[in-house]
Amino acid sequence: MKWDHIDQQVCSVARALSVVGERWTLLIIRDAFKGTRRFDEFQSNLGVTRHRLAERLSDLVDAGVMTKVPYTDRPVRYEYRLTRKGLALYPVLMSLSHWGDTWMNEGEEPPLRYWHARCGHQTEPVLSCRECGEPLRPQEVSTRMGSVLQEFVKDLRDAGRPIPTDAALPKEAAEFNRARQAARAGEIKPEK
Amino acid sequence: MKWDHIDQQVCSVARALSVVGERWTLLIIRDAFKGTRRFDEFQSNLGVTRHRLAERLSDLVDAGVMTKVPYTDRPVRYEYRLTRKGLALYPVLMSLSHWGDTWMNEGEEPPLRYWHARCGHQTEPVLSCRECGEPLRPQEVSTRMGSVLQEFVKDLRDAGRPIPTDAALPKEAAEFNRARQAARAGEIKPEK
Repeated sequence: MKWDHIDQQVCSVARALSVVGERWTLLIIRDAFKGTRRFDEFQSNLGVTRHRLAERLSDLVDAGVMTKVPYTDRPVRYEYRLTRKGLALYPVLMSLSHWGDTWMNEGEEPPLRYWHARCGHQTEPVLSCRECGEPLRPQEVSTRMGSVLQEFVKDLRDAGRPIPTDAALPKEAAEFNRARQAARAGEIKPEK
Repeated sequence: MKWDHIDQQVCSVARALSVVGERWTLLIIRDAFKGTRRFDEFQSNLGVTRHRLAERLSDLVDAGVMTKVPYTDRPVRYEYRLTRKGLALYPVLMSLSHWGDTWMNEGEEPPLRYWHARCGHQTEPVLSCRECGEPLRPQEVSTRMGSVLQEFVKDLRDAGRPIPTDAALPKEAAEFNRARQAARAGEIKPEK
């Protein structure tokens, strides 16, 4: 499997990384959260080459993470803004920032402190359970397969074939899922 | 600024991405959370080339995110395990997974559901305020500069130079921070 095909894995981490997993992409989104909108500003803030930046912004627009809005007519120039899909990446950036604060800081104070206007306190982000509000710890979280993986495993079992480990399933199920989606698309194809 | 130097930005997101921002790296860590430990298993689960995988694992060991433990003597073979620093990436992976569930799923059910053993409910992760427990929303969070950025901005102001925007600061302050760290290292150098 090439990197370019990781969006086909039956795994939301892989699908997310197919959009935000390239070099520079999450830094471009970080800058957008800080108010950067124009190509030249992104370029100067990041120091990335113009070619690479243009490629990344275009991919983000294609993926629906940013939108391109004209801000002047002659010549037409565009600025880039986060969409709702882009704004929804806030927890990813804050989690990366918190990890960097904790583990990549060489004993120094964090570069930035965060304040929560709602409660008026200096804050740090905690990943919590939607139901009970307690922090989510890996040893207290288990997974259950959704219907795609369940069907895939059932097919393997029916055919007497070995069942992949949890870690192998996302890639192993890719082809099964493609065929399943194609079949579904066929089902709803209008008759000619 | 080249990608290889983003760890020098005065920004915890950039520093985090200097370790986990390469293609495949977060998928390797995802697999490690699912129990994968051995080189051949990582390779077969991901489909990445052996050369690329070896490079990524070695970088992760150098960065202290994984540790390499011998599991057999003749020939010596190693397995890779997440360290505390690596386990601390759990919120990053869960945030990516949740974003993928919400935005990259083409209307289908998520590949996996999560269950929280502590409360016994199906769960989703919410990024919350450490102090009040409410979800952290970008429009309710403000930042204040830590001491490095404060000193940098004060120096610029004293010299009558323009102050960069918030988005430009992480890169602009990189050289200042390097000089500051070198000076500090000089201060504590033992006398000969």
